[in-house]
Amino acid sequence: MKPDVTVPSPRSFEEFTVGLRFRSPSAVTLTAEGIKAFAAEFDPQPPHLDEEAARGTSFGGLVASGWHTAAVTMRLIVDSDLGLGGQGAGMAVESMQWRLPVRVGDSLRVEGSVTETRPSRSHPDSGIVKFRVFTFNQRDEVVLEASHVVMVSRRIV
Amino acid sequence: MKPDVTVPSPRSFEEFTVGLRFRSPSAVTLTAEGIKAFAAEFDPQPPHLDEEAARGTSFGGLVASGWHTAAVTMRLIVDSDLGLGGQGAGMAVESMQWRLPVRVGDSLRVEGSVTETRPSRSHPDSGIVKFRVFTFNQRDEVVLEASHVVMVSRRIV
Repeated sequence: MKPDVTVPSPRSFEEFTVGLRFRSPSAVTLTAEGIKAFAAEFDPQPPHLDEEAARGTSFGGLVASGWHTAAVTMRLIVDSDLGLGGQGAGMAVESMQWRLPVRVGDSLRVEGSVTETRPSRSHPDSGIVKFRVFTFNQRDEVVLEASHVVMVSRRIV
Repeated sequence: MKPDVTVPSPRSFEEFTVGLRFRSPSAVTLTAEGIKAFAAEFDPQPPHLDEEAARGTSFGGLVASGWHTAAVTMRLIVDSDLGLGGQGAGMAVESMQWRLPVRVGDSLRVEGSVTETRPSRSHPDSGIVKFRVFTFNQRDEVVLEASHVVMVSRRIV
């Protein structure tokens, strides 16, 4: 499940610029066991829990919980060259759309770009960074897209 | 981690009405082990991975990944009397804000209400339901709020 990569070192607020692009270094492949384990704990609905039950749903087979796809997306963002690397505190998601089901064996990767930056009013040592992220499957189809808002540290001067 | 409840039977689209309120039947308490396991797989940043490393961050101690809180929230929604019960296909999140950190031992529950319903244009056998959900800790503080959009089945006539 986990890409074999080192998380890049964090970028300071001043190094995030609008238009900065990022991508995950490798893909994460979802397994039936992983899909069912996530669902048993966090989203126990038939399309995610069991092949047999899933066949009777509109999905026609086992699909990952959308929250599983969102969590894998976060992992791919952390592993990417965006450079949140350990200091990106999630503040909000401005929108998130699940575009296609994610099935057993699908390999996910992300690409995205920074869309806005501004100093934090409430935390003078921090800045706010917004980025848009697209999660692709192995057929280069978008399965999830979202806009994240995170707080990062300003450079220590 | 898992509340000992039976998931309520699904409500059909026609039974979702604007203003319908729902709540989780019991709380989910987060453990250090659970927080670290989720983070190791999905959000390997220091505030979520290790007590020692987390003390040196702005959080001052171990906190759950925001995506862990969001996933627990989904579990609490499925267990609630909203009545998605196995047929709610997530389409989108219109907004999601993390209001407060979630720490070891915090017990989460949800309350929410349906804000909009409309028949699906693309799927004549389905309808779209939007609901607003608030995730509370044991001090009745909101830790997360979000607006979800799901597709549910219409009554079979």
